[in-house]
Amino acid sequence: MLLCVVFAFCCVLHGFASGAKPNIVLLFADDLGFGDLGVYGHPTSTTPNLDTMAKEGLVFTQFYSASGVCSPSRAALLTGRYQTRSGIWPGVFGANSAGGLPHNETTIAEVLKEEGYATAIVGKWHLGVGFTKNNTYLPIHQGFDYYLGIPYSHDMCPCLICFYPDQPCFDKCRTSETPCPLFENSTIIQQPADFTTLAATYTNAATAFIRKNSESDQPFFLYVAYQHTHHPQFASKQFRNSSIRGTFGDSLSELDWSVGQIFETIRSTGIANNTFVFFTADNGPSLTRQVRGGNQGLLKCGKGTTYEGGMREPAIAWMPGKIKPARTTELGATVDILPTIATIAGGKTPTDRPIDGVDMSPILFEGGQSRRDYYYYYPKSPSPEIGVYATRYKQYKAFFYTQGSHCGSPYYDHDCWESTRQAKHDPPLLFDLLQDPSEKYPLNVEAYKDVVSVITEMTEKFNREMVWGTSEMHVKSSSADQPCCKPNCKPFPTCCVCKQGRLHLDKSSPIF
Amino acid sequence: MLLCVVFAFCCVLHGFASGAKPNIVLLFADDLGFGDLGVYGHPTSTTPNLDTMAKEGLVFTQFYSASGVCSPSRAALLTGRYQTRSGIWPGVFGANSAGGLPHNETTIAEVLKEEGYATAIVGKWHLGVGFTKNNTYLPIHQGFDYYLGIPYSHDMCPCLICFYPDQPCFDKCRTSETPCPLFENSTIIQQPADFTTLAATYTNAATAFIRKNSESDQPFFLYVAYQHTHHPQFASKQFRNSSIRGTFGDSLSELDWSVGQIFETIRSTGIANNTFVFFTADNGPSLTRQVRGGNQGLLKCGKGTTYEGGMREPAIAWMPGKIKPARTTELGATVDILPTIATIAGGKTPTDRPIDGVDMSPILFEGGQSRRDYYYYYPKSPSPEIGVYATRYKQYKAFFYTQGSHCGSPYYDHDCWESTRQAKHDPPLLFDLLQDPSEKYPLNVEAYKDVVSVITEMTEKFNREMVWGTSEMHVKSSSADQPCCKPNCKPFPTCCVCKQGRLHLDKSSPIF
Repeated sequence: MLLCVVFAFCCVLHGFASGAKPNIVLLFADDLGFGDLGVYGHPTSTTPNLDTMAKEGLVFTQFYSASGVCSPSRAALLTGRYQTRSGIWPGVFGANSAGGLPHNETTIAEVLKEEGYATAIVGKWHLGVGFTKNNTYLPIHQGFDYYLGIPYSHDMCPCLICFYPDQPCFDKCRTSETPCPLFENSTIIQQPADFTTLAATYTNAATAFIRKNSESDQPFFLYVAYQHTHHPQFASKQFRNSSIRGTFGDSLSELDWSVGQIFETIRSTGIANNTFVFFTADNGPSLTRQVRGGNQGLLKCGKGTTYEGGMREPAIAWMPGKIKPARTTELGATVDILPTIATIAGGKTPTDRPIDGVDMSPILFEGGQSRRDYYYYYPKSPSPEIGVYATRYKQYKAFFYTQGSHCGSPYYDHDCWESTRQAKHDPPLLFDLLQDPSEKYPLNVEAYKDVVSVITEMTEKFNREMVWGTSEMHVKSSSADQPCCKPNCKPFPTCCVCKQGRLHLDKSSPIF
Repeated sequence: MLLCVVFAFCCVLHGFASGAKPNIVLLFADDLGFGDLGVYGHPTSTTPNLDTMAKEGLVFTQFYSASGVCSPSRAALLTGRYQTRSGIWPGVFGANSAGGLPHNETTIAEVLKEEGYATAIVGKWHLGVGFTKNNTYLPIHQGFDYYLGIPYSHDMCPCLICFYPDQPCFDKCRTSETPCPLFENSTIIQQPADFTTLAATYTNAATAFIRKNSESDQPFFLYVAYQHTHHPQFASKQFRNSSIRGTFGDSLSELDWSVGQIFETIRSTGIANNTFVFFTADNGPSLTRQVRGGNQGLLKCGKGTTYEGGMREPAIAWMPGKIKPARTTELGATVDILPTIATIAGGKTPTDRPIDGVDMSPILFEGGQSRRDYYYYYPKSPSPEIGVYATRYKQYKAFFYTQGSHCGSPYYDHDCWESTRQAKHDPPLLFDLLQDPSEKYPLNVEAYKDVVSVITEMTEKFNREMVWGTSEMHVKSSSADQPCCKPNCKPFPTCCVCKQGRLHLDKSSPIF
């Protein structure tokens, strides 16, 4: 009886008891720093649509990605598990990687398929292609009904034209790989992808998917993994030279425009009151790109590090009538998104394996406390011998190891530099992140013996109990693993060029 | 005829043509950094009232104080003129200074007295006392009808109890000076000032002044110059240990509470639609105080420098129905406040002397462009031989000189350190502040020859034409110049102790 009352209370609070299952939209930016949005303090970013989302939603100030780099961060996001469990370590997938997210992992999309959701991903997948294995690692084999996107970072292919109509890209991209492939499902429909229209292509697919599904009784899950604001930045006619913040600002403005189109579609199709939207990013800014990298605000260092600037991200949750507009200092993380979405959808978080995420519903819907008071920071290239570099417990963060990053810059503090090698700290370096978010003033560990003891013990236990998945980064590969719209053509890889085919963005497709 | 049309148009836009003159409230924080408020990106500050002000008002992202330290910044604020003109250089006034803001300067209060305003200042004056000269430099001789406050920084006296009920202050204060005097008009009514009730004392005076004047037809000008968030931080029973940000957060929360009380009074007395409120601060954070200093967000260095962190400040303008909620990247400065207030009050900006400020009305009331596309940065201790250290022109900032600060910290970059002496740059160091707000990536001056040429020329002209006022800092003084409630008592200065007298916060006072 008591259980029934508790259950009814929860359901009333969440408002998910009756009616259609909520639609879910996950917006994920690339290399966007904690300080890049106006609502997080950037003085010259222009993001009216994200500002509106923030004004109407819940803004996190202590929200973490699972890694300072792409692939592991995305693996953790989609599985609710640290990347070490799924084998997405060390580092990231490249264009010619042969590994990918193992099929025995359960993604958010697979959780939601069980609940009858239509599922789609638009954008950067970066969890493997398996090009010589029938594209077995692409999203359509991981719970997504539909995929449109470049399956990895767009600097992993030779980048040529980034700005409408024909202006070259800034920064160097990899030149020995095949041109950037744009996949639809498991077909390359354009190679190289056209950056001057890419945001519109992604956005059209996203809004078409929303419109289509808003007309049916089927709930949907849409995951938009933007290539923006990763380098090389690109922009369409509408956004090139549009921002006073320069090239990075143009990229951010185009991302924001896309977010605006998606919200506009959610509102105009009448599903706003039953749609949960979450915005965050994969890792901190690529400082080595200088003014064309992002900005970590007041945090220390950026992409590729376990300092706050590498892994603390903007994060905004939106669901009118269910989530109250506010700012929260409660702890959250991308691994928490799967359990949270499972709750929202009335679905099941896998119970046959360790899940690192916790349900954020109390924070989102009840103005309550986080179910986590800890977080573990893996470096970009973790190893079982070392384990996590740092651990947060309540307001404290202990560094057992520190290291700079290839994404550092000599203009930032020395700790961020690539030349700053791995250093072990025993006793750990201890910081109070609530009073010292910039990790500038190490605490006297003698005065915090109890904290150091607790945090060391929990870290050792976590490292001891971690079961490391076989590394997918070490799967043997060759240049043939690089996606090519004309396999076996010559001269490889420059011959891999195809004009855009017809997208299935119409009613003949099972999705559209 | 055309003039009439233009005039009518402006008046319609501003809405100040008819009816009572608007009331004006100027809120001024102490040592508050660009990154200290939640609305400017701080993750753990709690400022609900300033957040509301920001939500309803215009938030500046490119707003400058006139100096990296107190007295000169306040002189420029109140006169609309760089501190060099009024002689408030080099450095700041101390407890035993004998100089002060010259009487031939025209303050905002004096401009508004001419327009029939009731005027009051509550808080930190820091423009001289003249204790042995009948307190001639106190606000009541500078256009203010009423003054309540400590007339300088509260670390310029021996600080003892900072937190309710009897907890000591952090940080060292000056011990050889008289205890902090609390003046009402020209009488010391309490010595030492009670920090555990000071915010409430200030706030009660401010709200009493608003209430009193809201009942009359006389418009009013209220200048609240908070001691918060300058070190040593202090807090009442309600706010000690109230913030997850620690001691600095407690101080900031108490400041925010006071701002809330003032807004509550403005609203409850029915004058919200005819009251202009402006919030900003005197200079950047005192980094040497570490977690008890403020935070400059993504800007470089802090208090005492001419880097952005020393002089770019949070700034919010509020006037419901007249100022639209927005964020602006237009340039503004504290010297612009006098001309702006003069316009709002239908008053006169002095024409018999150079005024450095420009009217911000186009930005505030028309969503228009700033009348300034330049700004000059004087160091904390300027000299006629050197002149300005840096000049902003449009998005560019050229440093002709750089120097660290006594308010720096070894935990920040070397450029901020006290040990970093004055360095001359020829050609100047050039930055693009819109793309590189952190002043990290110097531009190639060869590629920006035209910019360097323009900015050098305008700087040389400005320096050449500057007429330096006689330094008020060099006026000869002795310990007798320190305010003491029992002059000539012994042992001096510790004998200068008086319990709080009765404040004139009642109807018998000309103001209350």
